[in-house]
Amino acid sequence: MNRLNETHDPALSSWIESANAPGCDFPIQNLPFGVFCRRGTTEPPRGGVAIGDQILDLAAAAQTGVFSDTALIALQAASAPALNALMALGASAWSALRLALSRALRANSAAQTSLAACLVAQTDAELLLPALIGDYTDFYASIHHATRVGRLLRPDQPLLPNYKWIPTGYHGRSSSIGVSPQDFPRPHGQTLPSGLTTPLFGPSKRLDYELELGAFIGPGNALGSALTMAQAEAQIFGLCLLNDWSARDIQGWEYQPLGPFLGKSFATTISPWIVTLEALAPYRLPFTRPADDPAPLSYLSSADNAAHGAIDIQLEAALQTAAMRERGERAATVSHSSFRHSYWTLAQLVTHHSINGCNLRPGDLLGSGTQSGPTPAESGSLLELSEAGRKALRIGSGSEERRFLEDGDRVVLRAWCEQAGGPRIGFGAAVGTVLPARNAA
Amino acid sequence: MNRLNETHDPALSSWIESANAPGCDFPIQNLPFGVFCRRGTTEPPRGGVAIGDQILDLAAAAQTGVFSDTALIALQAASAPALNALMALGASAWSALRLALSRALRANSAAQTSLAACLVAQTDAELLLPALIGDYTDFYASIHHATRVGRLLRPDQPLLPNYKWIPTGYHGRSSSIGVSPQDFPRPHGQTLPSGLTTPLFGPSKRLDYELELGAFIGPGNALGSALTMAQAEAQIFGLCLLNDWSARDIQGWEYQPLGPFLGKSFATTISPWIVTLEALAPYRLPFTRPADDPAPLSYLSSADNAAHGAIDIQLEAALQTAAMRERGERAATVSHSSFRHSYWTLAQLVTHHSINGCNLRPGDLLGSGTQSGPTPAESGSLLELSEAGRKALRIGSGSEERRFLEDGDRVVLRAWCEQAGGPRIGFGAAVGTVLPARNAA
Repeated sequence: MNRLNETHDPALSSWIESANAPGCDFPIQNLPFGVFCRRGTTEPPRGGVAIGDQILDLAAAAQTGVFSDTALIALQAASAPALNALMALGASAWSALRLALSRALRANSAAQTSLAACLVAQTDAELLLPALIGDYTDFYASIHHATRVGRLLRPDQPLLPNYKWIPTGYHGRSSSIGVSPQDFPRPHGQTLPSGLTTPLFGPSKRLDYELELGAFIGPGNALGSALTMAQAEAQIFGLCLLNDWSARDIQGWEYQPLGPFLGKSFATTISPWIVTLEALAPYRLPFTRPADDPAPLSYLSSADNAAHGAIDIQLEAALQTAAMRERGERAATVSHSSFRHSYWTLAQLVTHHSINGCNLRPGDLLGSGTQSGPTPAESGSLLELSEAGRKALRIGSGSEERRFLEDGDRVVLRAWCEQAGGPRIGFGAAVGTVLPARNAA
Repeated sequence: MNRLNETHDPALSSWIESANAPGCDFPIQNLPFGVFCRRGTTEPPRGGVAIGDQILDLAAAAQTGVFSDTALIALQAASAPALNALMALGASAWSALRLALSRALRANSAAQTSLAACLVAQTDAELLLPALIGDYTDFYASIHHATRVGRLLRPDQPLLPNYKWIPTGYHGRSSSIGVSPQDFPRPHGQTLPSGLTTPLFGPSKRLDYELELGAFIGPGNALGSALTMAQAEAQIFGLCLLNDWSARDIQGWEYQPLGPFLGKSFATTISPWIVTLEALAPYRLPFTRPADDPAPLSYLSSADNAAHGAIDIQLEAALQTAAMRERGERAATVSHSSFRHSYWTLAQLVTHHSINGCNLRPGDLLGSGTQSGPTPAESGSLLELSEAGRKALRIGSGSEERRFLEDGDRVVLRAWCEQAGGPRIGFGAAVGTVLPARNAA
């Protein structure tokens, strides 16, 4: 998965001019997949690839005669209203399609005339969930997040003894995963405010975001079988942004002993474009751990993982209050980090998940857990940034402060890879807005 | 949901003679739904209703001209390879279909000739998962189980402070839910045996079953909305048996702080027949709590729930070792309890699940959590029966002992409702067999 090929050449440009603009999230080196339909039509949803400010309609492209062999089979799979069938085809099919698309969308391609008729402006498109998500699992792969949150809950033992051995995760709720932009009402729930012995019921007062990456599973594994580290990355179709909205007060009262439940399941927002693992190959880094930390158990170790298991994906969270929106003020960055700091790699998450025989299916989604970096300013949640509400954050140009999210607040997550002089492999955005709580039932 | 009608009349008998045999799980008062196809054919799976030792093929029945109006619409929905569309129709459609089936299958029905051609012997059928299960949630609704397990883990605080306030639950894994009979290899995983500081990797040594009921969701609720107690039961299509297989040693090392994960996700077995809530109406009981316990918060309270929120469903777990099977010896009962002891009712589980706006969808599955009764002999897991492995259980007629499950062990869960002189509303069985661990990856 780490090999570079002609699709990664930074010198490539596209006949779609907007893809060549500096800072564009979707240059020809990216080619992320999503599902869309044209706004205001009753057309069936189908797969698309973002290129510049356009979408290449993959169902239409399959009809042009431009593509053949494996790439055509992959395009036909991507013509469905969800990308599960494309995900099921596996890494060699994805790679063949990427190569064919790269060649066809390249400047001076003979396919330009045929494919120009398959473009839909992103502004004319409605983007949908890219796959039918069977199971959603959320991990906890940032040791910086786990330590910072642990310190707030258990000052004497911030990091639990299993953290450095197990890629901790839990099953999440699939039904409430929505695609960006997602608006949702502030959730109701039980909470036990400090000093009380009887819980209260009402809207959450400690609503938070979590800055994560999501990984969509490809072919997966059969029930009762397990994946090895060598097989794991070929099971990942690609990555998106994921906001694991969290009601900290509901979560705090409910989570013992069986973990997060209603504090999370009211909404999870993902970005519409899936950046393939192949597109991320140039941004691989060695996977390292502090010298004093235990080496992963052998089922979670491989030379390949040590050599380039990490990926330097820049991550950013920004917040726009309703007042900022009224003033026409853009969302203000509240933190910035990189996925390179993750304590567990994607291959380790996938391998661990399957090691008991649990089957992963095409379209299943894995969350990375909140990706916080080593310094407090690199924290991927307000819980960390506000030290559980003890410290107010100044947001935007006005006098507004936040400890947790208020009604009308909009959170914008972004991610991208970039090297000096090279293209920007952007993830677009995962945007969500907090609506006021509905009347209680 | 609690009203009795002509379908509950204990005096009813069927023209299918096997349904009238004493002790039959599937008399005409039951009429549970499942999905089947004839073994050894390539017929598409479709819905069926168990009656005596037969299955009424609902797709065939829809073609006979016997049924009309709502019952026919419901039959057409039940002709699909999964019952999600039938579940989505809602309680009045389910009830109309039940009434029409009860009349048509009754002794002396004019429909006998037409419907006799729609019967398939259960011995000729392969039973499949009755629905596409989107999300699976497992609760923890037996206070006796929670207390007994808590005492083993935390002798000083067996029951956590939130237990009597919150119907505790967690998201489970959908992909590994299988229909009875399900065989699965002993799972591998990380464990930290007592006295060690470095975890081991290998097959689980503390494999267990959990005796639960499962509830299939009907229409459900939209994301962002919440269900009230008055609406909750109409969202439940019916109940099945559920074995939440658990690897206690994997679970014990992994579950902090995010709850059960790989200790559960290797397999979950459900029984193939879904007994509708309407069929269970005669077995309703008042929902009561010890006088010293707090009353549920108002969103979890209703007069209807207090009057008949509980259901007296007998629950039984039996174990057959490989040696017993070789000797031709039946599975030996290891515990017996009743769902009447559940600390939380079905209506409370559904209402709580939706209260934060989380959407429940047709075909979602809720587990009740291990249903243990007040006395240790009524425990629904080996963890409780063996006191975490400290006490061996004598199984069967030989000299075999069990603390946890061994390879070749087969667990048979059964459930039924019965009143003196009345029919037996049986659930059939959820059967699962432990295979040896596969070679490690």
